[in-house]
Amino acid sequence: MSYSDSLSKLLGDLGATEGSKLSVVNGDRTYVGTLMPHHEFSAPDILILKMKSGYNVGIRIGPETKVEVLEAPVERTKKEGEVEFKKGLPKLVLIGTGGTIASYVDYRTGAVHPALSTSDMVNAVPEIRDIANIDARVLFSIFSENMNVEHWQKLAEAVAEELNNGADGIIIPHGTDTMGYTAAALSFMLGDVSKPVVLVGAQRSSDRPSSDASSNLMACARFCTKADRAGVYVVMHDTSGDDSFAVHIGSRVRKMHTSRRDAFHSINAAPAAHLDKDGKMVLNIDGPRVSDAKVVAKTGMERACVLLQYYPGMDPVLFEDIFMKSKGVVISGSGLGHVNENMIPLIRKACDNGTVVVMTSQCLNGRTNLNVYNTGRDMLSAGAITVLDMLPETAYVKLMWALANTSTPEEAKELMQTPLAGEMSDRRTIDV
Amino acid sequence: MSYSDSLSKLLGDLGATEGSKLSVVNGDRTYVGTLMPHHEFSAPDILILKMKSGYNVGIRIGPETKVEVLEAPVERTKKEGEVEFKKGLPKLVLIGTGGTIASYVDYRTGAVHPALSTSDMVNAVPEIRDIANIDARVLFSIFSENMNVEHWQKLAEAVAEELNNGADGIIIPHGTDTMGYTAAALSFMLGDVSKPVVLVGAQRSSDRPSSDASSNLMACARFCTKADRAGVYVVMHDTSGDDSFAVHIGSRVRKMHTSRRDAFHSINAAPAAHLDKDGKMVLNIDGPRVSDAKVVAKTGMERACVLLQYYPGMDPVLFEDIFMKSKGVVISGSGLGHVNENMIPLIRKACDNGTVVVMTSQCLNGRTNLNVYNTGRDMLSAGAITVLDMLPETAYVKLMWALANTSTPEEAKELMQTPLAGEMSDRRTIDV
Repeated sequence: MSYSDSLSKLLGDLGATEGSKLSVVNGDRTYVGTLMPHHEFSAPDILILKMKSGYNVGIRIGPETKVEVLEAPVERTKKEGEVEFKKGLPKLVLIGTGGTIASYVDYRTGAVHPALSTSDMVNAVPEIRDIANIDARVLFSIFSENMNVEHWQKLAEAVAEELNNGADGIIIPHGTDTMGYTAAALSFMLGDVSKPVVLVGAQRSSDRPSSDASSNLMACARFCTKADRAGVYVVMHDTSGDDSFAVHIGSRVRKMHTSRRDAFHSINAAPAAHLDKDGKMVLNIDGPRVSDAKVVAKTGMERACVLLQYYPGMDPVLFEDIFMKSKGVVISGSGLGHVNENMIPLIRKACDNGTVVVMTSQCLNGRTNLNVYNTGRDMLSAGAITVLDMLPETAYVKLMWALANTSTPEEAKELMQTPLAGEMSDRRTIDV
Repeated sequence: MSYSDSLSKLLGDLGATEGSKLSVVNGDRTYVGTLMPHHEFSAPDILILKMKSGYNVGIRIGPETKVEVLEAPVERTKKEGEVEFKKGLPKLVLIGTGGTIASYVDYRTGAVHPALSTSDMVNAVPEIRDIANIDARVLFSIFSENMNVEHWQKLAEAVAEELNNGADGIIIPHGTDTMGYTAAALSFMLGDVSKPVVLVGAQRSSDRPSSDASSNLMACARFCTKADRAGVYVVMHDTSGDDSFAVHIGSRVRKMHTSRRDAFHSINAAPAAHLDKDGKMVLNIDGPRVSDAKVVAKTGMERACVLLQYYPGMDPVLFEDIFMKSKGVVISGSGLGHVNENMIPLIRKACDNGTVVVMTSQCLNGRTNLNVYNTGRDMLSAGAITVLDMLPETAYVKLMWALANTSTPEEAKELMQTPLAGEMSDRRTIDV
């Protein structure tokens, strides 16, 4: 679908093309913005402008509307930066995956696309070259909602390869949608990685004035070069302002807002570090420190795992097939990790069949404990296990990994209940 | 399983029975607490004491351990309070459902049980009788993880009955696990209810010194009698202290911590009111006001609905049966409401089959918007709808209700996208 014939003619007569800067006067309102392509969800006589704020508006064009072209479209130019190697600076390798941090608005479709090259991204933050030598490599260019288990595996392998080839740290620009899941996956796959591996995202694409892409990237590079902390982390805005950044432990972080720049929160743990816009850093964790140990990626994942949220009315008959076909089931239960008692026979049947059933809480914050109430105890008797204060999403990722890296369900359960990458508190529930 | 023979003999010789207050000296540590029954997850030589903090500890009893009985068990006595009707005071009806707020520790099993009568609860807060005449009625006595759709229906009917019989407000003591779901269900079933209907819970049972049961109940009664606000609400602690209470809109509230007393948060909306411990109230919403209109409970619910969380690695083949058998599917997608593109053919197939597919966000906070990225647009084309900033749990409850109260999927979609009980913002996304 495209603009109506009359609207297309009007635009053609004015010499306006997609990307042109227009002024549109409709009655007493004036809109100034960039002409976007027509969109199948709008009527054909609605003209779409991208405003300076980054938001699109649809304007109905009537006989009285005055449209004027202010500027021709800006040509996108891509240039590879000259790579100047500076002696004495640490070497960081950017491994590009896609996402808003590496995206621009496609004027053909009006949507945001992952398309900037990783070196474009570095060139957008020239001061990063003052603190590190940057190598950039594009591994994929996808939105993070399309990230899958095999992407995690390839990414872990690429990280290990770069670190073993001399990188002092890895920066992974990543879409924010599933950045928490990927961070958890890398946390387990890379185990006691000897260098910082930091995922970084943006909630606003780099064509928007409020973009957080550059400042997050800079904070990320500072943490990698100055903190002396190994492990998998996520760096994002800590507040809605542009002057504070949080470094989250990769297995403890969750996207908690659809659009705010400070969408990422550490859950059940403090952030590992905070940075301000001048690079001043406060570290909240003691270790692990950077070393020269070889990095081994253990990327095995059991795919037959599911993550389910319990809700009143959940029908055990409807979910039986999923429980029985899965090697691992993570349930985000209510409260301390509960489900309706009518689910317990199914949990027992699955556990008896060798499925590992792990209870977490949809409250997200706080510890699970199945010893307080009767239904919880029945679940323990049925064979379910709890994992203290581990996030449901992290538990799902860890369960895939634990099942692939052990030989029996019992070993996998033991591994699930052992802290490996900061993903759970070290204190076991007292089983009384 | 019970305590070991030697431990049972020791306890018998001392005259200690379950509920006795004991002092146990083990090396240089002394424990004082209430003797609990043995628990099948502990070794038989571990003695279980409930400490003053409310937590249980397990103590291994060796030959050197000194055990002493300090006090005999406290007998639980239940007495019905004399009901004195005070002229001029409003009439509140408590409809008991169970939960921690109405529970005590069962010394036979060591677990918390729903068992106090609703009038016991009122008697525990005698000052409530200064502001209202209280009628109490026990509808069920279950933990809220066992609440089901038919419980919501019975509860809505009981509320309507009591209000139409002259109650000025309804207080519903409820387990916290699924209190948010029940509040959402009542919000839609009771529609424009003309009086306050307020759910109230407790995170600590009333035998614990830190119990929040009484203070939440009192704040609830104050809101019901003084606020002049109709609708369905939830009252809980607003902070971890005992001096501040929040009144949440029933369709906007979520349990966000497994154990804290201030576990309940309003999401994407401010609380309707705040109260302090002296009853001082700040109202944040203008309406709706109390009236004398008859209350109608529309309790129809389409049970063939599911709530699913999207996660990377979600297998569309495994979930096909659930999508095709359901009349309604709510997905808490990633970010703005996304799923992996490999899920989209299944969403299309289900929509073509007449299933209503509703996208929400697992971020919980913020609005969904499927118009920003390509995968989102593909989902709209497939037939999925979004519901702005509605919580996934509320969307699931509302979808059951909408499908039962309309004749076609299109009507149900329209109803889903229309704010009915404060559950979503009133501003539609601009479809550009």
